[in-house]
Amino acid sequence: LGQHTSKAFDDELEQIGIVIDRMGGIAAGMIEEAAAALERRDARAAERVIAEDPDLDRLQSNLEHLATRMIALRQPVACDLRAVVGAMRIAGDVERIGDLAASIAKRSIRLGAMPGPDPVLAGTRRIATVAASMLRRVIAAHRTSDAVTARAVWAGDAELDEECAALFRTLLTFLLQEPRTIGFGIDAAFCIKNVERIGDHATNIAETVIYIVTGETVEDKRPKGPSL
Amino acid sequence: LGQHTSKAFDDELEQIGIVIDRMGGIAAGMIEEAAAALERRDARAAERVIAEDPDLDRLQSNLEHLATRMIALRQPVACDLRAVVGAMRIAGDVERIGDLAASIAKRSIRLGAMPGPDPVLAGTRRIATVAASMLRRVIAAHRTSDAVTARAVWAGDAELDEECAALFRTLLTFLLQEPRTIGFGIDAAFCIKNVERIGDHATNIAETVIYIVTGETVEDKRPKGPSL
Repeated sequence: LGQHTSKAFDDELEQIGIVIDRMGGIAAGMIEEAAAALERRDARAAERVIAEDPDLDRLQSNLEHLATRMIALRQPVACDLRAVVGAMRIAGDVERIGDLAASIAKRSIRLGAMPGPDPVLAGTRRIATVAASMLRRVIAAHRTSDAVTARAVWAGDAELDEECAALFRTLLTFLLQEPRTIGFGIDAAFCIKNVERIGDHATNIAETVIYIVTGETVEDKRPKGPSL
Repeated sequence: LGQHTSKAFDDELEQIGIVIDRMGGIAAGMIEEAAAALERRDARAAERVIAEDPDLDRLQSNLEHLATRMIALRQPVACDLRAVVGAMRIAGDVERIGDLAASIAKRSIRLGAMPGPDPVLAGTRRIATVAASMLRRVIAAHRTSDAVTARAVWAGDAELDEECAALFRTLLTFLLQEPRTIGFGIDAAFCIKNVERIGDHATNIAETVIYIVTGETVEDKRPKGPSL
């Protein structure tokens, strides 16, 4: 009891890793599909994204039950405890990413019905693709206990912030020229902000992976780009 | 060891409760001060709110260390484990609320320098005050293990959502009449959205309090108002 290399503990940790991989894959797919639905003004594709969100909530809830039971029954310490607590934290971030992707999908349905500049929609898809790729990389880094990749994802968030800010300026310029499209503008602004926040959650996950692998908390100030 | 009523465990749980109270008080104060700074276009007051945010981050980090050590050393089960895991979750929500209040403060500095309708600023302060009060009530409910009050806060979020949506419509109407104030409009829209999200986090906390006290997960669909 309380012993590090219990077979039962390792099996359960493997289970938890599988749930995290699955959650990460679903969330990254949701981001990509929501952004594609936005660019193509495809309400039906957006509805499919929204329908996926409860899956993530359920998986997170399963993971929390699993992890809490593990802590209670197996009483892990040191790196084993970090792995379990870290997994709960990552699942929380992935679940929030799913909410943000679903929010982009919801707004894309309204946006699809409004006149507004296609380049803003295409730009949003482009930055969303970057955010989805950050998520896929950091989830893979979790699976392989790869702190170096996690650190690279962490550092890359500043670039995403820059791209979000540039797109935001493009949107504002357009709105000053076409003031009747304010409804479009506000929904688009929230979509861009949601992508920025997805990047922040991927960065949180990177910090958690580094913590799990090295036991160290990232103390550096985040390399933040300009805030929207 | 692993025994329910260990004195050491109770002392540590008391410690954790004190940290949560303190975090909740700081965050509620930040919301109220940020909203007052917004209404009065008072950049200096806004700066003070922004300066408080690191305190919350540090307290959350302290609480996580405390809670993780408790789980490892005291190996709590059942309601004791729920109390510790729940406290970590609440601290996470309060920390996010602090970020959102700081974000309102940051935007209030920009908003204060732009022409725009005072009623929107006053309205934002009004809904922010409602959100701060939800937070204070649910933190008190945590302290007194009061699931009934937690349930009331939970149910009250729909009303806050309604008020946010109404204020949002007021803002849109104004922007259609005064299109040159689009910069003001987008910052104000994000402030209103931040208040709505603060309400969502207070609702999360309510669910956690109910879970800690009763052991039950709130399965009801949230009484959501219209989304912005």
